[in-house]
Amino acid sequence: MKDAQVKSDIAWANPSKVVVHGLDLCNEIVGKIDFGQMTFLQLFGRLPDARELRMFNAMMVILVEHGITPSSLATRFTYCGAPESVQAAVAAGLLGLGSVFVGSLDNAAKLLQETIPANTPLADPKAKAVEIVTSYRSRKEIIPGIGHPFHKPIDPRSVALFEVAKETGYYGPYVELMDAIGKEATLQAGRPLPLNVTGAMAAVASEMGITWKICRGLAVAARAVGLVGHILEEMRQPMAETLYLRIEHEATKHMHEEKT
Amino acid sequence: MKDAQVKSDIAWANPSKVVVHGLDLCNEIVGKIDFGQMTFLQLFGRLPDARELRMFNAMMVILVEHGITPSSLATRFTYCGAPESVQAAVAAGLLGLGSVFVGSLDNAAKLLQETIPANTPLADPKAKAVEIVTSYRSRKEIIPGIGHPFHKPIDPRSVALFEVAKETGYYGPYVELMDAIGKEATLQAGRPLPLNVTGAMAAVASEMGITWKICRGLAVAARAVGLVGHILEEMRQPMAETLYLRIEHEATKHMHEEKT
Amino acid sequence: MKDAQVKSDIAWANPSKVVVHGLDLCNEIVGKIDFGQMTFLQLFGRLPDARELRMFNAMMVILVEHGITPSSLATRFTYCGAPESVQAAVAAGLLGLGSVFVGSLDNAAKLLQETIPANTPLADPKAKAVEIVTSYRSRKEIIPGIGHPFHKPIDPRSVALFEVAKETGYYGPYVELMDAIGKEATLQAGRPLPLNVTGAMAAVASEMGITWKICRGLAVAARAVGLVGHILEEMRQPMAETLYLRIEHEATKHMHEEKT
Amino acid sequence: MKDAQVKSDIAWANPSKVVVHGLDLCNEIVGKIDFGQMTFLQLFGRLPDARELRMFNAMMVILVEHGITPSSLATRFTYCGAPESVQAAVAAGLLGLGSVFVGSLDNAAKLLQETIPANTPLADPKAKAVEIVTSYRSRKEIIPGIGHPFHKPIDPRSVALFEVAKETGYYGPYVELMDAIGKEATLQAGRPLPLNVTGAMAAVASEMGITWKICRGLAVAARAVGLVGHILEEMRQPMAETLYLRIEHEATKHMHEEKT
Repeated sequence: MKDAQVKSDIAWANPSKVVVHGLDLCNEIVGKIDFGQMTFLQLFGRLPDARELRMFNAMMVILVEHGITPSSLATRFTYCGAPESVQAAVAAGLLGLGSVFVGSLDNAAKLLQETIPANTPLADPKAKAVEIVTSYRSRKEIIPGIGHPFHKPIDPRSVALFEVAKETGYYGPYVELMDAIGKEATLQAGRPLPLNVTGAMAAVASEMGITWKICRGLAVAARAVGLVGHILEEMRQPMAETLYLRIEHEATKHMHEEKT
Repeated sequence: MKDAQVKSDIAWANPSKVVVHGLDLCNEIVGKIDFGQMTFLQLFGRLPDARELRMFNAMMVILVEHGITPSSLATRFTYCGAPESVQAAVAAGLLGLGSVFVGSLDNAAKLLQETIPANTPLADPKAKAVEIVTSYRSRKEIIPGIGHPFHKPIDPRSVALFEVAKETGYYGPYVELMDAIGKEATLQAGRPLPLNVTGAMAAVASEMGITWKICRGLAVAARAVGLVGHILEEMRQPMAETLYLRIEHEATKHMHEEKT
Repeated sequence: MKDAQVKSDIAWANPSKVVVHGLDLCNEIVGKIDFGQMTFLQLFGRLPDARELRMFNAMMVILVEHGITPSSLATRFTYCGAPESVQAAVAAGLLGLGSVFVGSLDNAAKLLQETIPANTPLADPKAKAVEIVTSYRSRKEIIPGIGHPFHKPIDPRSVALFEVAKETGYYGPYVELMDAIGKEATLQAGRPLPLNVTGAMAAVASEMGITWKICRGLAVAARAVGLVGHILEEMRQPMAETLYLRIEHEATKHMHEEKT
Repeated sequence: MKDAQVKSDIAWANPSKVVVHGLDLCNEIVGKIDFGQMTFLQLFGRLPDARELRMFNAMMVILVEHGITPSSLATRFTYCGAPESVQAAVAAGLLGLGSVFVGSLDNAAKLLQETIPANTPLADPKAKAVEIVTSYRSRKEIIPGIGHPFHKPIDPRSVALFEVAKETGYYGPYVELMDAIGKEATLQAGRPLPLNVTGAMAAVASEMGITWKICRGLAVAARAVGLVGHILEEMRQPMAETLYLRIEHEATKHMHEEKT
């Protein structure tokens, strides 16, 4: 093991040149490709064609900003204690992108990719959806990518994403299966269980050939952008200190009272 | 303080709609704007025009990937211990983007923005550069944005970035001052001290009206993308375990030997 | 949900007094109890008796230092980029304490606590061990807490920990079951599968009534101490910069060669 | 640089033995020394004598728990999103221990250690304090370790810590200087500026020979323990989800209203 090869194919440089994924940074990247293309290049090791780029951009923009969330609050509280370390405030916000908020993205993509390993159409997506939903319900497990506490009966972001998928030719077997799962889940539950944005993202990412293991990484990269926006707002219009003083007061007032 | 207002203007949602910086996410963002525009929107609160977008994209793409660095190694070592937490591996890599590697970006931008508060041309940038370089040298301090151990006598990334700045009309007072500082530093030191990529970035960011306090945030967001690429490579072609076994062996062999 | 109570029972203060878990910090904690007692207090909400403290200290000291590991390397690489943020370097090292290195602690404790919910002796620990080992092997899953690539046929740390458990009266049903699992695993595999230190820790923590959900937290707290030690050594005797330059060179030399 | 030595003196192991700072983990540490001694060993590379240990324990216990703070809130919000990654929740809380909350500890220790490099008594601590306070006030800078918004006119934790310092023989030149600075600052300001707990800690750490560069590390290690306690409480008695829903509602209601 100790003698295994240590090798990276991402980038190399000499004093007058930097090469990233085979492209000359100064002559073929800067001023030539945009941030969406660069992100695709970094993940796929090649530049996207026009329809890939359009679909990929749609996925990335949808992930950037989710408003006041536990994640953006962690960033704001961290910034309030360590304003000199913007990188740490972003990192703190990313750390909460775990099983509760982004995990369903990986899990839905895993379910899809394990069900359809080779991106070949299922003969009967509806039958497969019945099988999957029945199995999850029998184990009393939540089906990843299905249901939303707030965006119901329809998650408008899934609709928007699937429209781009149709236009760009990514409305394929994974999307069909995910869609069928959403419909079957609603039917079996007897109440609206929308195909949520993580389910839609998982389906589209699967269509694009993105392994479920890195789906969370897309969300993390996009959210890093979002969290920088929250830091900028916290600089201009802070809330963390006010919040912490209020919460401290409310959370401990029972102990103050006991003592008097 | 406890009674201060708690207010965010970034995003809000109702069950059928999500609004980010005043734009309807599903109808005006997804499928309509790309990742570069979305990043600009998140930082500036408005969409860029064409020349702003071109300049902004050039800055972001240059920051994504820096090869095998302490930061990408921290990500790879963290992934090796916690592969289930891709977000933590990215966060670990971001945490090293501090005073040594990205701090010169903030510091150079601060120097420029404090020297030229209102983006008005200096009467004599050369004279100001002499003053600044002389002052730093007298305090034996490193001038931020100047010098590079490897990319010398010229940092090709600065050249590439300034070409885009010229094309897009961002070659203004901050760039001129930074450039003059580089030349004067080389003159006074008697050896090549190139205007490095962080100095060039700082100048361009200043031209675009980006406060020095958030410059590091741009680097952090772009590098988050880069680190996801390193995780993907670590999945396919791991190096962390091999490296750690080798390092452990080398670092402790003197203690093994003492005992025998 | 929004109207739920927000309440913490850990600490409160007035201008002249701080109270932590019901004890007056200045009069009953500082100068009165030591760091091990304080750690126990923070986790259990009460002070330990002598035998609890002795067992607890044994667990904590064993977790502090594991040498050059992916975790301590992530700390050192982060410190090298952000020496002004010691907190970030410690945090980076903690982030790798995930499923690969510390997860077996939680998993072993979970297995034990789900098998023996009420800390009541099993009638036949050996039979239960056979059942568990057979089940894991049939699913081709690794049994948590069993086996070590280096410390074999015996993990000396498990022996040391169990000696303290015997002396302090914590050698009970969980330890017996864990021990039986180790023996049965070795038997079924036909090669030495030692009860490793995480298995031993899991058994002792279960004896002490520590829920498996927080076992990883004990490791994290102890390792934070360890990582500060690595930062101190990195200050005096740095290795991160040397390592990164070497690794960068080795990992990218194939691309340099291709170009010449 | 690439050829520099890579060496760590902290720990080494063979299959049947682990050695940490020269002590056999299984025979000389586990069951033999407690968590406070182990922490001292990890930081100093040797075991403490009784008075060192008593002073060190007093410093560590005071740093463990500070109630509901931005740091413990960042931990709770992170746990709420990634309950499977206890290590990440602790890390997120540590990341806010920066310039605002713990930085004064380093800064005060730096001030003391630069003023008294060799731990030799100052001829006239009062005169030096006048000089220092006058200098800070003329630059309109806050004196590190002095003043507290809540614990005034006296910070009771400083009193408690200095009592232990007297008993253990650590009430020396650094403590005297810090004390004199507090008195002079109060005099010059014309209002109570207590010697706060970070100032007291800085003085005692300086007496013990702890370099200011690692003082923050002591706080970070102790607080890691504290944050595990907050995670345990959040498991039993959660507040993060309630808080986030409330904050989201309050922070965005002006945008909802504008639209209706």
